[in-house]
Amino acid sequence: MKNRIHFNVCEREEAEKARLFSRIEEERLHIGYYNLPEQNIDNILEYTAHFNGETENIVVLGIGGSSLGSKAIYEFLKPVKTPKRKLYFFESTDPLNIMEILSKIDLEKSHFLIISKSGTTVETISIFKYLYNIQNSPSNYTFITDEASPLDKFAQEIGSKTFYLPANVGGRFSVLSVVGLLPLALCGVDIKELLSGADKVKESFFNDGYLKESLLNKAIFYAKYHTTYNINCLFAYSETLRYFSEWYVQLWGESLGKKQCNSAFHVGVTPIGLIGPKDQHSFLQLIVEGTRDKSITFIKIEDFQNELTVPDVKLPHLESLDILNGITFHDLITMQSDSVIEALQLQGDIPLDEIIIERVSEECIGQLIYYYELLTSLVGQLINVNTYNQPGVESGKIILKEKLKKNSLNK
Amino acid sequence: MKNRIHFNVCEREEAEKARLFSRIEEERLHIGYYNLPEQNIDNILEYTAHFNGETENIVVLGIGGSSLGSKAIYEFLKPVKTPKRKLYFFESTDPLNIMEILSKIDLEKSHFLIISKSGTTVETISIFKYLYNIQNSPSNYTFITDEASPLDKFAQEIGSKTFYLPANVGGRFSVLSVVGLLPLALCGVDIKELLSGADKVKESFFNDGYLKESLLNKAIFYAKYHTTYNINCLFAYSETLRYFSEWYVQLWGESLGKKQCNSAFHVGVTPIGLIGPKDQHSFLQLIVEGTRDKSITFIKIEDFQNELTVPDVKLPHLESLDILNGITFHDLITMQSDSVIEALQLQGDIPLDEIIIERVSEECIGQLIYYYELLTSLVGQLINVNTYNQPGVESGKIILKEKLKKNSLNK
Repeated sequence: MKNRIHFNVCEREEAEKARLFSRIEEERLHIGYYNLPEQNIDNILEYTAHFNGETENIVVLGIGGSSLGSKAIYEFLKPVKTPKRKLYFFESTDPLNIMEILSKIDLEKSHFLIISKSGTTVETISIFKYLYNIQNSPSNYTFITDEASPLDKFAQEIGSKTFYLPANVGGRFSVLSVVGLLPLALCGVDIKELLSGADKVKESFFNDGYLKESLLNKAIFYAKYHTTYNINCLFAYSETLRYFSEWYVQLWGESLGKKQCNSAFHVGVTPIGLIGPKDQHSFLQLIVEGTRDKSITFIKIEDFQNELTVPDVKLPHLESLDILNGITFHDLITMQSDSVIEALQLQGDIPLDEIIIERVSEECIGQLIYYYELLTSLVGQLINVNTYNQPGVESGKIILKEKLKKNSLNK
Repeated sequence: MKNRIHFNVCEREEAEKARLFSRIEEERLHIGYYNLPEQNIDNILEYTAHFNGETENIVVLGIGGSSLGSKAIYEFLKPVKTPKRKLYFFESTDPLNIMEILSKIDLEKSHFLIISKSGTTVETISIFKYLYNIQNSPSNYTFITDEASPLDKFAQEIGSKTFYLPANVGGRFSVLSVVGLLPLALCGVDIKELLSGADKVKESFFNDGYLKESLLNKAIFYAKYHTTYNINCLFAYSETLRYFSEWYVQLWGESLGKKQCNSAFHVGVTPIGLIGPKDQHSFLQLIVEGTRDKSITFIKIEDFQNELTVPDVKLPHLESLDILNGITFHDLITMQSDSVIEALQLQGDIPLDEIIIERVSEECIGQLIYYYELLTSLVGQLINVNTYNQPGVESGKIILKEKLKKNSLNK
């Protein structure tokens, strides 16, 4: 993994960087996600080994941090590695969506993972009630929740297996815990490689490797100019990263969109996930000519390990496009991203950087995930927010519970 | 379709609204999309009638304005109306994505629509070359392009059918032209109903109907505060609107992200598409507690016409969620959106409005499309940009062509 920064990071003072680094080292003592790369995963691998060919589908009931991470990794790897089992997600109360997913899966050949940190997530439990009413064999369910949550107690009561979220790991930072690892391992993803990728970035950052400087510089720039560049775009040149960008949007938005600690001031940089080259034909115009309120990170895949080639076909009247003949699509998409980066550099006033991952593999996505988690923590420290809570979503939940109570009494 | 505006539109002066309205009436004389609802579609229906059961798939090669609109409508309707044929899109040069789509479709049972306004879109032509090299029967292809474009001339030469884009209709405003209508009609979508929905909004706006006031007020507010609320979120409470939100992002971003006419000033309001309830667990925290730089439009479906219900199941330790028992998922998702709207209203400083469409139908999505096209034109007039061009994407294209030329010479 490489990170090329094209904006002027202004030679930050060493003292500023050292201060930030030491605050993160301190955070690492009590925030759980930092040390997930070196966790023991024997229990997950043992449990996974018990499943046989009769289980064709893994069905996750979960929303937000309980689904976005495993979906990102599963969809990233799917085009290059046929999954051992298919992974499905129920993550909406939209009845049409529930019916559509139900129509696709054979419930008899499915194992269900019910994932809810609190154990009382409305979306997850409402769909669980629906499924459990049809299929109520405890061995078809595995639960992932906080220890002693209502869902844990329920699982104990019916005798299903439960895994616990590790201490001090919030939902959106939980993809490298059992929340992401169990569904992925069941689908044949090499979770050791995934963690080993994350560990490389961790080591690089905490032990003076090459990513330390670029992460610190980038975070300081983003934080310093967060009111100027109040939008951060991730522009990934591969369809395989589509769900990674949804994961990033939650991580970034929910972690950094806050009232500042000890202040009533609202802060936050808005995340936007873009996919190239598609969004060259949608969002690029706004980047080039619109308000200068965006920083952009391009993500490129160094080697698609794929030789699909535009054939050497000359078409009458389309001679101007003969320059495409014989090029691999891999080279074409790389030239497309490079051309857009060069065009944006010519503008001169848009902060750009590039992340290059080697290929579509477990190790590479593990790196990318840990890189973004670190960057989020760094920016959170600098803009003075609590990166790990989400108090803003509570009032909507309370209003909903009141509405549900009223509705339930009126029956 | 209803539109409830919850922010203070400040009793705009009648003169200001009248001025804006007359500028749009003037624009309507030369911008083509305004009058698409009353176009004659006999040629499309006749052509569609020639297809028989042997064609099982319709495969669109197109990107941006050539694909986002038909995809939005197809995916919106799919859960309630089984498509007559399946619709696939090649819209990326990502080799893994191309391979994945190829693995899903039987080319022998497919008809291909090659859609490119200019006729020289790199993504579209590169994939076309690949497919045409495998399957080169002219009767399997239909072309949609500008008259006399290189692609038109090529189609004439091989004897394939060509449809032309109507005059003065840009890509992102073309969904209600043959660009969207042909693929949709081939998949069994009732395109008359689609246009009739659009026509209702058109009539309501241009003939003093109920939407005129709210559209004018909303546009004036967005324009007046476009530097304060530099982000516009569309928060749609149904998974069926997922691709509609991608269509909206192109429409809004590419139309309004511009240098102002006769000025070097960069303007633009950044569009973000959100889907509820999923994004309550991702983006909502940022809306509630983050910087006050966003206006939000909620889209709700009045009647999902679906009775899927949470069963009356009591689960030990989960008694607090018995309030869910017996509720339809339709009512649940509606209560969820209402709860979030109420919670945001309590904040008091976030401009909110709601659009309520009746149901999942051709007519309703036609209304929504025309509503957003009008709103875009109105805001474009007020912030003084050319809503219908996209000069910012050219320099990247030129750099790419140079790279391709160089690459082609080096072989």
